[in-house]
Order: sequence, then C-alpha cells, then structure tokens
Amino acid sequence: VAEYGLNSRSQKAGLDPGSLIYVGEPRSESVRITRVDYKAGYYKAHECVNVSDCIPIEPLEAEAPEECFHWIHVEGVHDEATIQAFGEAFQLHPLLLEDIMSTDQTPKLEEYDNALFIVTKLLSFLPGNTSLQQLHSEQISIVVLENTVISFQEHMNVSFIPIRERLAHGGSNKLKKHGPDFLAYSLLDVVIDQYFVVMGNIGETMDRLEDRLLSESNQFTLRELYRLKRVVMNVRKSTWPLREVINWLHLSDTSLIQDTTQPYLKDLYDHMVQVVEQTESYREMLSGLLDVYLSNQSNRLNSVMKTLTIISTIFMPLTFICSIYGMNFEDMPELRWSYGYPSVLIVMAAITTVMILFFRKKRWL
Amino acid sequence: VAEYGLNSRSQKAGLDPGSLIYVGEPRSESVRITRVDYKAGYYKAHECVNVSDCIPIEPLEAEAPEECFHWIHVEGVHDEATIQAFGEAFQLHPLLLEDIMSTDQTPKLEEYDNALFIVTKLLSFLPGNTSLQQLHSEQISIVVLENTVISFQEHMNVSFIPIRERLAHGGSNKLKKHGPDFLAYSLLDVVIDQYFVVMGNIGETMDRLEDRLLSESNQFTLRELYRLKRVVMNVRKSTWPLREVINWLHLSDTSLIQDTTQPYLKDLYDHMVQVVEQTESYREMLSGLLDVYLSNQSNRLNSVMKTLTIISTIFMPLTFICSIYGMNFEDMPELRWSYGYPSVLIVMAAITTVMILFFRKKRWL
Amino acid sequence: VAEYGLNSRSQKAGLDPGSLIYVGEPRSESVRITRVDYKAGYYKAHECVNVSDCIPIEPLEAEAPEECFHWIHVEGVHDEATIQAFGEAFQLHPLLLEDIMSTDQTPKLEEYDNALFIVTKLLSFLPGNTSLQQLHSEQISIVVLENTVISFQEHMNVSFIPIRERLAHGGSNKLKKHGPDFLAYSLLDVVIDQYFVVMGNIGETMDRLEDRLLSESNQFTLRELYRLKRVVMNVRKSTWPLREVINWLHLSDTSLIQDTTQPYLKDLYDHMVQVVEQTESYREMLSGLLDVYLSNQSNRLNSVMKTLTIISTIFMPLTFICSIYGMNFEDMPELRWSYGYPSVLIVMAAITTVMILFFRKKRWL
Amino acid sequence: VAEYGLNSRSQKAGLDPGSLIYVGEPRSESVRITRVDYKAGYYKAHECVNVSDCIPIEPLEAEAPEECFHWIHVEGVHDEATIQAFGEAFQLHPLLLEDIMSTDQTPKLEEYDNALFIVTKLLSFLPGNTSLQQLHSEQISIVVLENTVISFQEHMNVSFIPIRERLAHGGSNKLKKHGPDFLAYSLLDVVIDQYFVVMGNIGETMDRLEDRLLSESNQFTLRELYRLKRVVMNVRKSTWPLREVINWLHLSDTSLIQDTTQPYLKDLYDHMVQVVEQTESYREMLSGLLDVYLSNQSNRLNSVMKTLTIISTIFMPLTFICSIYGMNFEDMPELRWSYGYPSVLIVMAAITTVMILFFRKKRWL
Amino acid sequence: VAEYGLNSRSQKAGLDPGSLIYVGEPRSESVRITRVDYKAGYYKAHECVNVSDCIPIEPLEAEAPEECFHWIHVEGVHDEATIQAFGEAFQLHPLLLEDIMSTDQTPKLEEYDNALFIVTKLLSFLPGNTSLQQLHSEQISIVVLENTVISFQEHMNVSFIPIRERLAHGGSNKLKKHGPDFLAYSLLDVVIDQYFVVMGNIGETMDRLEDRLLSESNQFTLRELYRLKRVVMNVRKSTWPLREVINWLHLSDTSLIQDTTQPYLKDLYDHMVQVVEQTESYREMLSGLLDVYLSNQSNRLNSVMKTLTIISTIFMPLTFICSIYGMNFEDMPELRWSYGYPSVLIVMAAITTVMILFFRKKRWL
Repeated sequence: VAEYGLNSRSQKAGLDPGSLIYVGEPRSESVRITRVDYKAGYYKAHECVNVSDCIPIEPLEAEAPEECFHWIHVEGVHDEATIQAFGEAFQLHPLLLEDIMSTDQTPKLEEYDNALFIVTKLLSFLPGNTSLQQLHSEQISIVVLENTVISFQEHMNVSFIPIRERLAHGGSNKLKKHGPDFLAYSLLDVVIDQYFVVMGNIGETMDRLEDRLLSESNQFTLRELYRLKRVVMNVRKSTWPLREVINWLHLSDTSLIQDTTQPYLKDLYDHMVQVVEQTESYREMLSGLLDVYLSNQSNRLNSVMKTLTIISTIFMPLTFICSIYGMNFEDMPELRWSYGYPSVLIVMAAITTVMILFFRKKRWL
Repeated sequence: VAEYGLNSRSQKAGLDPGSLIYVGEPRSESVRITRVDYKAGYYKAHECVNVSDCIPIEPLEAEAPEECFHWIHVEGVHDEATIQAFGEAFQLHPLLLEDIMSTDQTPKLEEYDNALFIVTKLLSFLPGNTSLQQLHSEQISIVVLENTVISFQEHMNVSFIPIRERLAHGGSNKLKKHGPDFLAYSLLDVVIDQYFVVMGNIGETMDRLEDRLLSESNQFTLRELYRLKRVVMNVRKSTWPLREVINWLHLSDTSLIQDTTQPYLKDLYDHMVQVVEQTESYREMLSGLLDVYLSNQSNRLNSVMKTLTIISTIFMPLTFICSIYGMNFEDMPELRWSYGYPSVLIVMAAITTVMILFFRKKRWL
Repeated sequence: VAEYGLNSRSQKAGLDPGSLIYVGEPRSESVRITRVDYKAGYYKAHECVNVSDCIPIEPLEAEAPEECFHWIHVEGVHDEATIQAFGEAFQLHPLLLEDIMSTDQTPKLEEYDNALFIVTKLLSFLPGNTSLQQLHSEQISIVVLENTVISFQEHMNVSFIPIRERLAHGGSNKLKKHGPDFLAYSLLDVVIDQYFVVMGNIGETMDRLEDRLLSESNQFTLRELYRLKRVVMNVRKSTWPLREVINWLHLSDTSLIQDTTQPYLKDLYDHMVQVVEQTESYREMLSGLLDVYLSNQSNRLNSVMKTLTIISTIFMPLTFICSIYGMNFEDMPELRWSYGYPSVLIVMAAITTVMILFFRKKRWL
Repeated sequence: VAEYGLNSRSQKAGLDPGSLIYVGEPRSESVRITRVDYKAGYYKAHECVNVSDCIPIEPLEAEAPEECFHWIHVEGVHDEATIQAFGEAFQLHPLLLEDIMSTDQTPKLEEYDNALFIVTKLLSFLPGNTSLQQLHSEQISIVVLENTVISFQEHMNVSFIPIRERLAHGGSNKLKKHGPDFLAYSLLDVVIDQYFVVMGNIGETMDRLEDRLLSESNQFTLRELYRLKRVVMNVRKSTWPLREVINWLHLSDTSLIQDTTQPYLKDLYDHMVQVVEQTESYREMLSGLLDVYLSNQSNRLNSVMKTLTIISTIFMPLTFICSIYGMNFEDMPELRWSYGYPSVLIVMAAITTVMILFFRKKRWL
Repeated sequence: VAEYGLNSRSQKAGLDPGSLIYVGEPRSESVRITRVDYKAGYYKAHECVNVSDCIPIEPLEAEAPEECFHWIHVEGVHDEATIQAFGEAFQLHPLLLEDIMSTDQTPKLEEYDNALFIVTKLLSFLPGNTSLQQLHSEQISIVVLENTVISFQEHMNVSFIPIRERLAHGGSNKLKKHGPDFLAYSLLDVVIDQYFVVMGNIGETMDRLEDRLLSESNQFTLRELYRLKRVVMNVRKSTWPLREVINWLHLSDTSLIQDTTQPYLKDLYDHMVQVVEQTESYREMLSGLLDVYLSNQSNRLNSVMKTLTIISTIFMPLTFICSIYGMNFEDMPELRWSYGYPSVLIVMAAITTVMILFFRKKRWL
C-alpha cells in the first residue's frame, strides 16, 4: 500500500484553493469513460471517445425509457480537462473537482446542494499476485446526483465489471429497479468486499509468520513482521474513516438516498465494523508476535550462553589439572609414581562426569 | 475459538447483497427443527421432519389454548432452502436471512418493523473436554416476532435443553407466563452463563500458568501464554459488542419487549459488564505474566553468566600460575627449590579461597 | 483480595433468573441480625434471634417515638430463608434478592419503585495483620427504603460498629436527625474510608519495594511486584464502578434522598475520585518500578560480563606468553639467556598494568 | 512533591463527616491572619492578632469607603478554632471547613449558596534552592463571598506578596477596581504562574538528563529518571483537575463572577491547557529517555562482549599452537628444525593479523 | 522545532494580566509593517515606516474604491509600542494583545465582539536547508475584523508573499472578490500547506532511517530516532489544537465568516485531519522502528556470543588434549609411540570437524 502522496501534495503549497492539479503517481494513459443507461428492463452501455459523447445527459437512443438512470464511470483522473468538463456539465463545486484529482484524500463524505460526494480507497492485488507487497491502493470518488452516478477511479481495472454485468443481465433485479443511491451502495459494497479479501490475506500471512516464529526466528522474520505492521497500519488508515463515511451515509437524511436503501447501508456498516475490528485484532496479534520474537531471541541467547558455559566449565578444570603436571619443578613426587598418569586421567574423567550430572540437574542439558 | 471466516466471506465478493450463501465451516448434517408451543399450563414439543411441518403457525392440536406462544429452534444454518422458507413464512428481510447464514457476524441487534433480530456467539466446550484449545464458538441468531421466537444455531448441541425442560415442567413458572421476549432473554441468559464458564476456565488456566511461570519457565510456557492471549482476544471480540446489544435491548422502546422483562435485561447487562471487565483484567494479567516471563529469562541468563564468570575467574589465574612454571627457561630458581611445588599449590589454594569469598560477598554464590 | 467467584457463578448456568442461590466462599456460621430503632433523642438496639423478631417493622417498645427510623443489619448472606423473608416483608424484587446472595457483583446502584439498592465492596484486613496478602474483600448490599435501611454483609466484623456508637451516644447529632439516606451515606463513608486505609498500605508497600529495588533486586522482588500489581488491579475493579455509583447517587433525583444529604454525597464523590486517581498513580508507579527492575537486571548482567571480560583479557595474553616459552623447540635462544625468565616476568607485569589502566579509562573498574 | 497524606487521611476513618481534624504534616507555628481592605483609591492592610480582630467585617477606620472589598489571608490551617471561627462568622458549610483543613484534597471547585470554594495546589521551591527534590506542594483554599475573599495557605511564604503590592500601590489599577472575583482570579494566576516556573525547571532537568544519557549512562541516571517521572506524575495529578476547575469557573454562571472577569478566566484556562500539554509531553519524553537508557545498556553489553570475543578469538588459537609444541612426544620433527621456532612465531603473527582484519571488516574494531 | 519558551514565560510570574511583555527568543530587528488595500479590480500595497502610516484606516489614494478591504501584515512582535498602537486603533482586548506578544501560545481561536483572533504556528525551513534539525517554528496571529485582516508573524520571511502576488495580479480572482474571511482562510491554507511539506520531509527521513536500521544499526541511529521522535512530538503539539481551531472556525456562526467561505474551511479541516493522522502514523512507525532497533541490538549480541562460543568450543578441547601430552609424568606410554604425535593431530582434526558440523546443524555457522 503506497503512502499518501505527501510530496506531490506539498507541491501544491501556495496555489489557489480549487486549482485542478493532479496529485498522485505520474500517469500517461488516456482516460476511459463508460456510460451506462439503465432502468428495469432496459440496459445500454456506451464507450465514450470524448467527454462530450457522454455529457450532457440526453437519451442515447430513441427506445430509451424516460427518466432512465445513468452511470458514468471514469478510469483515470489525471486529465484536468476531463474533470473540468464534468464539473461544468453537472455544476459540481470546484473543491469537489480538486478532491477527485488529489488522490491522497482520506475517505470522506461531503453533502453538496445537488450532490453527495464520497471518497474511498479500493485495495486490490495485481492480477495473479496476491502477495501483500503487491497490494495496490487507488482512490475511488463517487458523485451521486439526482438520476446519475459518476464514479472516478485512478486506473483501468476489473473491480467494477461485476456490477455492469448485473445491470446488463437479469431483466429487473434490485440493482436495476433502484436508483443511483443503490448503485452507489453497490459500488461501496465492492470496495468493502475487497477489504475482506485483503483481511483474509493478512490473516493467512500472519498465521504463516506465527508458525515460523514459533519454530525458528531470524532477522528476516522481523522485517516481515515490520512490513506486515505497516500494511495493517495503512489499511487501518483507510478503514476507520470509511466506517464513519458509511455511518454518516446511513444516518444522513438527504433526499438522494431512498428509505429502501437504508437497510443495505446498515448492513454495509456492519461489514465495515467487522473489518475495523479485524484490523484492531491484527494489530494486537502483531504486537503479540513481536513479543514472541523478542522472547525467542532471548531464549536463543540463553541457549548459546549455556553451551559456552558448559564447555568452559568442563574444560577449564581439566586443562588446569594438566597444566599442574606440566610444571617443571624438580621435585614433584606424583610425576614419578607409576600410576600417576592413569590416576590423573581417572580424576579428570570423574570431574567430567560430575559436571555433566550437575548440568543435567540444572536442566541445561 | 475459530477465527471469523474471512476467507469464506471473501468468496462472496461481487455477489448481490441479500444472496443466501452459507459462510462458515463446511457442514453436511441435515437440519433439525424443533417447535415448542407453550403457555401457562400448556406445553407441546414437536420435532419437525420438514420445514413445512413447522410453518405456517397453526394450532398443532385441538386442545392448544388460543394465542399460545411458539418457539422454533433450528439446528444447522447451512441449508439455503430452510432459511428461505422461514423468510417467506414470517416475512423476514432478505438481509436478515443473509446474516443468519453468514456465521462470521459480530454480535448485533437489529430492529425491523415486525421483528427484533439478535445475533450472538455461544462459546462451548466439546463434551468431556474443557481445554481452552477445544473451545468452540458458534453463532446464535434469535428472531423475536409477536408471539414467536425463532432461534438458529449452527450445530446440534445441548446448551438450550434446560430451557425446554423449564418450559415442559413446572405448571406456570415465569418463563411460561411471559411471552417471547422473556424466552429470548432466557436464551441470551444461557449464552452469557456460558461466558462465565469460559471465564472461570481461563482464570484457572491463567493461575496454572502463573504458578509455572513463578517456578520455572520455558519456550512451551510462552506459547501457552500466546495462545491464551489469542483466546482472550477472541472472547473479547464477542463480548464487547454483546454488551452493547444487551444495553440497546434494555434501552429500546420496541413494543416487542414488555416492561416486566426490563429488570431482567438490566440484570443481564450487569452480568455482561462483569464478563467484559473480567476480560480486560485477564488481558492486563496476561501482559503482567509476559513481563514475569521475560524477566525470568533475563534472570536465567544472569545466572548462567555468573556460573561462567565464576569458573573462568577461578581457573584462569590458576592455569596461568601453572603455565609460568611450565616454561622451559634454563635459569628458573624456583624450580630447584625443594619447597617450590608445595608452595605453588598453597598459593593456588589461597587464590581459590579468596575468589570464593569474593563471590560470596558479591552474592553470586 | 479474592477473585470474583467465577467458578461458583458458573454453577448457576441454566438456572431460572431470580433463583436464590448463594454464590461465594462456602460458609457455615449462623446469620446475625441486628435491628436499631433511632430518632433524634431516641435509640434502641435489638439482637434478633429469628428473622421474625425483626420484621415486620412495629414499635419495639411503647416509648418509641412515632415514625422513628430503622436500621436492620444482617451479617451473613448465605442463608436463603433469611433473604427470602426480607424479600417478602419489604416487597423486594427477586433480582435484588438474588444480587444480595451473589457475592461476586461489581459495585452498582439500582433504583426500584420503593427502594434504592446499592452494592459495594468493603476491603478490610484481618485483625492484627495489615499485610496486603491478607486483604479481605466482602460484599456490602444496602437497601434504602422509606424509613428503613437494610444492610447486608458477608461476615461478622467490626467495621460498622462506630456508626452504631454514633447512633447510641450523642443525643441529637446529624446521623440521628437525618433519615435513612444519611445512614446509607454513613455506611458508604465507612466503606470508602477503608479504601483510604488500603491505599495508605499499598503506598507504604510500594515505597518499601522501591527502596529495595533501588538497592538490590532479585526474583523475590519481582514476585512481590507482580502480587502488588494484582492487588491494585483488584482494588481498581471495585473503585471505578463505585465512583460511578456515588456519582449517580449524587445526581439521582429519587425522593429517597433528601437535599440536605446531597453535599455529603458530593464530598463522598470527591473522596472516591481521590481513591481512583491514587489507584491510577499506583498502576503507573508499578510499571515504573518494573522498568527499574528490568534495568537493574540488565545492569547486573553488564557488571557480571565486565568481570568476566576483565579476567579473560588480563589472563589470556599472560597465559599465551607462558605457553610460548613452554614449547619444546630445541633452538629457542631466549630460554638460554640468563635474564630470560625475569624479562618475561617484567613483560607480563607491564601487560597487566596496561590492561588495568585501559579498563580504568573505560570506567569498567 | 510530597504524596497526599493517605496515612493521615486513614486516621479519619469512622469519624463524623464534617469533623474538623487537620490532615497533613504536623505543624506547630501559630496562624498568621492578614486582612486587607481595598477599593479604587483606598488601601488598608491589617495584621490580626486574634481571629476576632478580623471578623466580623466592619469598617476598620472611619475614612474607609462604603462597600469596600476585603481580602483575608490565613497562613496556617492546622488550628481548628481559627477555621471554626471563620465558619461561624461567614456561615460556611461544615464540609467546606473540613476541606480547608484536609490538605490532601485534589483541586476542585464547589458552589455553595453564598460562596464559591476553590481548592488548588501551589508548587514552590524552598528559597535559594530550585532542585526538583526540594519542590514543595501546599494546598491553597479560596473562598469567594460577596465582597470578600478568604484565602488559606498551609505555610507562611512569599508567593502572594506581589498581589498585596499591586493592591497597595497604583491608585486605581484593574485589581483594585474589580471585585473579589478578580482577586480570586489573580490568586489563581499566581498559582498557575508557579506551574510555569516548575515546568521550566523540569524541562531543564530533562535536557540535562538527556545530555548525560546520550553520552554516558549509569544506575544513578536511572534513579534520577525515575524520580523525575514521579515528580511529573505528581504535578500531573494537580494540573489535570485544576484545568477542569478553571474551565468550570469560566463556564459557571454564578453571580459571584462578573462578566468582565470572564476573558481573564479564559486566558487562565489557556495557560492551564499549556501546562497540561507540557506535562503530557514530558511524560512521553521521559518514556523516550527510558528507551534510550535501556538501549544504551544494551549497547554497552554488546561492546563488552565484543571485547571479550575479540580477546578470546585471538588468544585461544595462539595458545593452542603453543600448547601443541609444548607436548612431550619423543618424535616431533618440527621441534628439531632449526627454523621451527621462528616459523611458529610467524604463523602466530599471521593468525593475529588475519583475526584483526576480520574484526575490522565486521566493524567490531 | 524550539520548545515553547517556558523559561521566558516564567519571568512573567507575578505580573498584571494583560501586561505587554514579549515572550520569546530575544530579537533586535525593527518591525516591518505592510498594508495592502484591495478589492476586485483594485490593488495598492504600502510599506509603512511608522505605525501611524498604517492606521487609522483611511483611503490611501483618491482612486481607491469605497469600502475596499485592508490587510495589514506585521513582521516582528517584540515591540510593545507597535502592538499597543494596533490595540488602540482597532480597540482590541488587552489579553489579545498579550497573546500576540507571547510567542509560546498553543494554536487557538478566540471570538471577541468585534474580532476573530486566531493563533497558529508556521513551520518552515531555513532557506536552502531542509534538514529537520533546522526546522523553525514561529507564531502567526491573525485578527479578523470587519473589513480588515491584521496578521502578525515573528520574523521577516517569504511564506506569505504568494498571497500578495495573488492579490496584486489577476484582476478579479476569488481572493480579491471575497472579504477578510477568505484572506484569513488563505493565510491558514499557507500555514497548513507548510505542514504537508514538513510531513513529506519527516516521511523521507523516516524512510532513510528505516533503510539504515534494516541494514545496520548503531548508537547514532538511536539518537536520530530519538530526535525524530521529538520533532514529531512537537509537530503534533501544534497540529492537534490547530485541527480543533479549524473545526471551530468551520462550525462557528460568527457574522465575520461568510457562507461562501465555509466549503473552503471544510476543505482546510479535511487537510488538517490528514496532517494529524499522518502524525499519528509517524508516531506508531517510530515505535515500530525502535522495536526493530532493539531487536537488531539483540541480534548482534546473539551473533557476537555465537562467535565466542564457537571459538571456545573448538579450541578448549584441543588445548586440553595438548596439555595432557604436555604433562611431565615419567611413565606416559603414548609419548614414546612413534605414531603418537600424528595420531593426536588427527584426533584434533577430527574433533574440529565434528564441532564445525555440529554448529552447521545448529545453524550457527
């Protein structure tokens, strides 16, 4: 999970508020805009080449029902002109536009006169790689208007395709019957489902780390522990405010959200509570694992020192005895005894045995 | 206590909200449904073979009093058709049904127009085994309707049998006189009583650990400490929200709860507060035990190092003296003294004595 | 301070709520009941042999003033029949009776229609022994009725005798003039004064521990530290809720408490705040002492290792020099020099001196 | 900073509430009472020999203006008769009087019908000694009445003399123009200014400790760290409640405080917030310093062990080589080589060089 | 970031509240005052030589539009006369003036009848040096009046020049059209943008530290860690209250702030939330880095001790064997064997090999 772009942010110092400047990783792909018109029993998707193809909202085809709902999905927020065009067509506040382009926002909810504005973070893995090192965070901005939802995401990716599928197929499911508020809910549901995927992944990584820590422990493990901690910290930074966003959305009395959508938002809030609590559990477990790690190191030091002490305690007295009889005094009667040498060997064997028994008793061996 | 099924959960990503998909450990047993009709002076239990035997609610027998109360208890929530049937018969909200089947919920209370919905976790031990490793957590969902309580649990087990006994025996006790709210209270009371059992078990385990830690300490103990910490963390994850659930229930002004039941809910809330505080105590005691453990390790290292230092400090000077008289200089007058050898031995004995007294004084021996 | 009786508690699992079952240490003494009738200028104490001597409340003697106040003090709560009799005579709620007999309650305040019910914990030392190991906790339940206070305590002990003295002597002091609310306040005042005694004791124990820690430190001290921590934790578990109880009592607008008693309750609350803050201070000081302890251990290890290193660093080079001249090469010219031996001795003395100066400079000696 | 007198406190157990008993260090000096009458343009100070000289409030001199303000300052609160006399003359509540004499109060504010009662702690250094060991805490009680302020302090000291100076000089400054509320504010201002002095002192002590810790570290430093921690804890125990007292004073709508004084109380509150935040900073810095200390110890151990390891690693192989050629086998060809001895010396020099290079590379040297 | 001037502060003890005394680092430069008159389409800047050139507010030139807005920017707050002059000209409260000169304030917002008073801290680096050691904090006081903003800063520096540029250029941008509230917002925006710059810098420093910690670790790193911690603590001390200030400003219903400015204040608040959360993240990461550091030290000790143990374990037995055959017993048959010497050498080689294999297996080598 990349850090919020504090450096890019600081380049905006001194600029007029509301200036549209892209804050985020540099990007050069072109922007892709998809417009979907739908209603119970009707569905029409449309890839827009230019922004002007999408807006203003007019019936794309003759057979479109009156008052159908619109979903405009924008992939890529680095192009000032595009964002500006949306701002003018839908009369969006300049600060709202600025927030869309500043991809270092914390999740938030803002109510404007004609619009609900939701910023959130979508976590996803690169295709075919679910390593937490490759966890990718991108900003999703959702603008809920009267009959229209406009959603912005930083990259082209596949996260929201299932929603389009559900709109395209099935003649008249919940998603097609309800208005833009239900669509916005569904988008948030996708975002939060991704958190569950990430949580599951973190949990597995933690279990693996735990197994390794309880068997062996090395510097490498500590680094992984530390990296995991940073991942959890970053996820937490997104989830706490998102929980509040969902709660405000649920409690809000804006006319843009219909009563029938409320139970779904409550459900979403419950999910979010689960995610947040899981994050807290992970933090606590990580600190528990650190304790295990440090205690392991201390255990290992103890074991190393015991080895050293055993070796020294056995060989120092033995060597001392030998060195006594290595002295060159002229008058050392033991040296002339014929059983002198075997006796010394026996004494040394006895000392060794006693030492070993002593360490056994002390449970060092 | 098993982790919430984050992985299963993540398989639901992208699905329609309200889709009935079982989230939990795979299960293949069939579902058992028991229906009890009761009223002061009346009791009739009925094992339902099919769901349709239980619902719709009609007098099972001619002699049943009018307006008697119903308790339908479902063991097993993995069968979509069963849950769906209940949903249709009692007009339950799709999200409520989804929550019953998703066994990774945190405890919560939801008020619907016609129903109170309570989710909680029942902790229990496998029969004949009260080891905390075998602590088992299952989700209990309770739906309180006007004259009916429907309760769902994941497995067949014996926890709620005493309640049925109390309904069957005793002509007209409190449980039989009061309506479904009192029955729901009694179910929750069973759940919370189980927490006390688990708390007592944790307390005993902790006392055992404490005794062992204050006498000896090894890697094994740390692992147990860590496992106990995880158990306490998991219990805590269930108890905090449950306390809130009971509090909301107590403070709620829904018509489904009668005034006479309120003091009992207050009492339940007090019990829950006790459980939560005990959990917090255990967390603090566990961290105290970890300090004891780490300090023990450090003590042991100190003692190992003292042994090494004593051995080295005694034998190094002695060996040094011997090695002086092991030198081969031609002109070493001491070597020719007739008392040379005994003098050296006496000097060495004196050094040893001084060293030992020195370590005594330093309290190392 | 004994742990709350979680095990006894868990034996109640599955029972009817409101069932009167004694939860606590097993006890066999008989229950002692004392009834005091008092009013300004009047005092009459009466030891009741049976419960029926005490209740119902009727003038004990002809000369008793009309509307005098009653204080019934019960020592021993393990007898179901006694408690039941009180419940019937004063129309007390079954859950209130159950709480009196369950001596594992946390302090709490409950308002019933006709009664205020206060549960608190009295800490006391065994006579002639103020060691914290012998700190004893018992549950005090106080029922405030219109003209009557009924107080329950687990054992016979002397804590409340001063209150009876104040009622007996002094023609018309505050305690005698005011009603049952002031008596209840006075009982709580005794309980809280005991906390100050215990706090003073903990403070002295901590000072003693601190002195010992700053001079010497051993395993024994850590155990005491850990035990003191558990005592503080247990005291804290009683004091936090008691502070809230006093606060609610102070803020309550029940007619059972007169306005003139309010300033005294405010004063009591201030005392309780002091106790709670002192507990928090002690917790923080204990963690500070643990840091001192661990740092002491680390210091000691450092000092042990320095000794070892100094010894090794001095004797290893010396022994090496000796062993050079202990080699048996035929052609070692130094061996034949007449000043060879003294020169080597001088070199070794020089090395020793240099080493000692080096360690002095490094402040190891 | 002395601990609150918990032991003295506990001697009050069992006494009537409102009994006037001095709680604090024993004291034998006589009580000094000073009465100041003042008004814009008028000032008259008066040392009272007896309490009766001061009260009741009557014009001391003919020329005193009508309705002038009075400030009675009492140094010494250990004499029951004095306090009792004030209580009767100004109709003060018995609990208020008890609080004045109990010098172990935490700072608090109480509103009585006719009086505001403020308890606070004045920190001061003994004259000519600003060591934190000599920090002295005494209780200041301020009673604000309609035209009169009565202030009590435990000792005679010079803290409030500047206020009398400001009353004596300057014909008509703010202090003289405004009523007793402004005088009370000014007294509190003196108290809080002292906290800034103490904070500055703690800050300097901490900087000194930090410098010493980053250069050297010994047992002595840890003790100072621990003592500083206790000082900060004690200061904190006074400042947190004082902040609340000032806030309540600021928010209170009592008629005893005039609107013109409110901005000054707000300013005082801001100062108090600064003091409290500084205390928190100091706590955090102290824990940071402890980390530095422990890490220093660990560094030192590392360095000791490196010395030992280097010495052992160099001399053990050398001594081993010597001991090979110290063996007495008859057939050791090397011994007879004429270059045997020099070769061995060269080999040993080479080994030493290699070892030293190895340790250089490992950055141990 | 310099500590708040506690020492200077303490010199104010005993002074009249509202006395204008400069609290801060001594300064001798003269004060520079700049006055800007602006309105949509009009701009006139004016360097004032004396305070009297700036005030009272009168049209500086004939062509100035009626009711134009004024911005008076004062660089240097150490001159009492200047501050006093502003106080008189704009009728500012004495405490407000005192706060401007006391540069040790925590950020705060005060509402006076005719003025909003905002105190904040501007963090900046010295030109050409972005080391955190050179981070500089100065107090910015902003007084918002009806048509005028007066801003005070301690030094002359370039931070606010971009705002003057935006006023000078561009005929009629947002800043010129809106009144003093928008100007105050813009000043705060500059201050907060600086926090982002500092955050970015701290983040980079932390990444560098992290890289170094995971590769090597020495005493120097710990000092940097500790210094970084103090920087973060100091930044935090400014940011938490500033967040509250912005929030109060946003929620305030003062007539001095127009509705059109509110969304910008909300935006500012969001930025501030980001800064505060980032600070908290940094604190947590720093404590994580400390864990890594301590664990590194412990690892290194382990590695040192392993080296020592390996060396000792290999050479002690070898030296012992040699010393056996260095004994001078007359009857040692091995000495006379012709293969004695080679056999011993082979035995020693075998022992060495076994030891090395043993350590390999234990993963010590």
